[in-house]
Amino acid sequence: MTSSQAGRFAEDTAVRREGDGWVADVNPRWNVGDNPNGGYLLGIALRALVEETGRPDPVTVTAHYLSPPQSGPVQLRTAIVKPGRSFVTATASLLQGERERVRIIGAFSDLTARKGPTRISARPPDIAPPDRCVGLIELTNRAGRKVPEVMNRFDLRLPPDSPWGAPGEGDPFEITGWIRFGDGSDPDPVSTVALADAFPPTLLGAVAGGWVPTIELTVHLRGRPAPGWLLGTFRTRVLVDGLLEEDGELWDSEGRPVALSRQLAMVLGP
Amino acid sequence: MTSSQAGRFAEDTAVRREGDGWVADVNPRWNVGDNPNGGYLLGIALRALVEETGRPDPVTVTAHYLSPPQSGPVQLRTAIVKPGRSFVTATASLLQGERERVRIIGAFSDLTARKGPTRISARPPDIAPPDRCVGLIELTNRAGRKVPEVMNRFDLRLPPDSPWGAPGEGDPFEITGWIRFGDGSDPDPVSTVALADAFPPTLLGAVAGGWVPTIELTVHLRGRPAPGWLLGTFRTRVLVDGLLEEDGELWDSEGRPVALSRQLAMVLGP
Repeated sequence: MTSSQAGRFAEDTAVRREGDGWVADVNPRWNVGDNPNGGYLLGIALRALVEETGRPDPVTVTAHYLSPPQSGPVQLRTAIVKPGRSFVTATASLLQGERERVRIIGAFSDLTARKGPTRISARPPDIAPPDRCVGLIELTNRAGRKVPEVMNRFDLRLPPDSPWGAPGEGDPFEITGWIRFGDGSDPDPVSTVALADAFPPTLLGAVAGGWVPTIELTVHLRGRPAPGWLLGTFRTRVLVDGLLEEDGELWDSEGRPVALSRQLAMVLGP
Repeated sequence: MTSSQAGRFAEDTAVRREGDGWVADVNPRWNVGDNPNGGYLLGIALRALVEETGRPDPVTVTAHYLSPPQSGPVQLRTAIVKPGRSFVTATASLLQGERERVRIIGAFSDLTARKGPTRISARPPDIAPPDRCVGLIELTNRAGRKVPEVMNRFDLRLPPDSPWGAPGEGDPFEITGWIRFGDGSDPDPVSTVALADAFPPTLLGAVAGGWVPTIELTVHLRGRPAPGWLLGTFRTRVLVDGLLEEDGELWDSEGRPVALSRQLAMVLGP
């Protein structure tokens, strides 16, 4: 594996202009079962929005997942909501067969041009380095579960003592580990946002399996990631009547916080 | 003060149909300086969206604040993004003088109709009861600061030992306290979402004053609030180059979590 900026994620989220909008191809390599990973779909939309806004950083983006698209061509309709000096706000609709599948709104900027105070009280999770962690695929196999196809796109490693790997052992609804793309490509602003939806559901280790579809995902990109691994931690504290939040943090290889995420998801039957 | 369902917030967020859309009046009673409170503006939009979707609960709503409206009439354009059995997704644009001021997207549902597992590991903050706390207005006066007009709409009380009241004393960037409307009216689904933006900025106690405008606010309504006080806690852990998140929780008088919020805000000069 060599480290490089472009990679399979960049290729599979590529967009091209067509008429007033954009088109892209949803590749089944990023599927969970029959459905594309939500972070991957968001990545496609963000590629178009970065072009439309002329700003490289999706500083705050929200995606509403309306109905999962199938593999194959998708159309993107984009619109600038408000142009601005420091932020450009824009929306995108990801459509397939005239049906809207995902609606995105975001504010885009150039984080490297910002000036202001910095004070960080959050600290990165304290876990073993990647070479002393265990691959998620190995853990999943050990637990006798099927590995979703999308998981083969990542190198995701959990601490050997991760409670996540032990199904049925209850709290905490939490997962912490290292992640990078399986092809060794480095994170960029768009792929970092997508990686905030790359970890398996926090609940999967503790309650009955089944799909945990995302209703809404919001990610704040708080810094440009350094090359190398990202360290992610995701937590659920409030599961009520089948609805849950997943709160996430991504830290880069230099120990800086690069993304905060929250999604509202839903437990479906086993 | 008598406790009642309707109150000034309900009156001041009332919307009425006009043509294809809705109109409302932005009342300066809810101002911070010259600008309306963001939660109040969101409340106006949610009144229209609850009508449009036919669903009482804004389960996840995101507002992008584009430019502050002035007091007076505003127009609302609403659109259903996706109708559905359990969730209806819809957008609203709040306009004034043909200029869009706030864009909202949300998924609406009826929380009382949901079924599924419940497990809550979060716990409400442990602070003194309201009658042993200190009013925010008194604390603000003591600190020699001006009380924003909107603060007169709330009964907001902080623990006597709150670090927030001591300007310049640094970390934590955190504020915890009790809140209800000053007229004693009880929270409802829409006003609970608005109250997630009612506390003063977490940073105000610790760094130079000035306005901390919200770029984007997302609130998840996780339960119907019981009558009475709400207990709120808001925290900032990552301030980088003047951008910060504010993570909030609102708990109802029966100790149940009713809202989780996160906003991205910006420190402006003193």
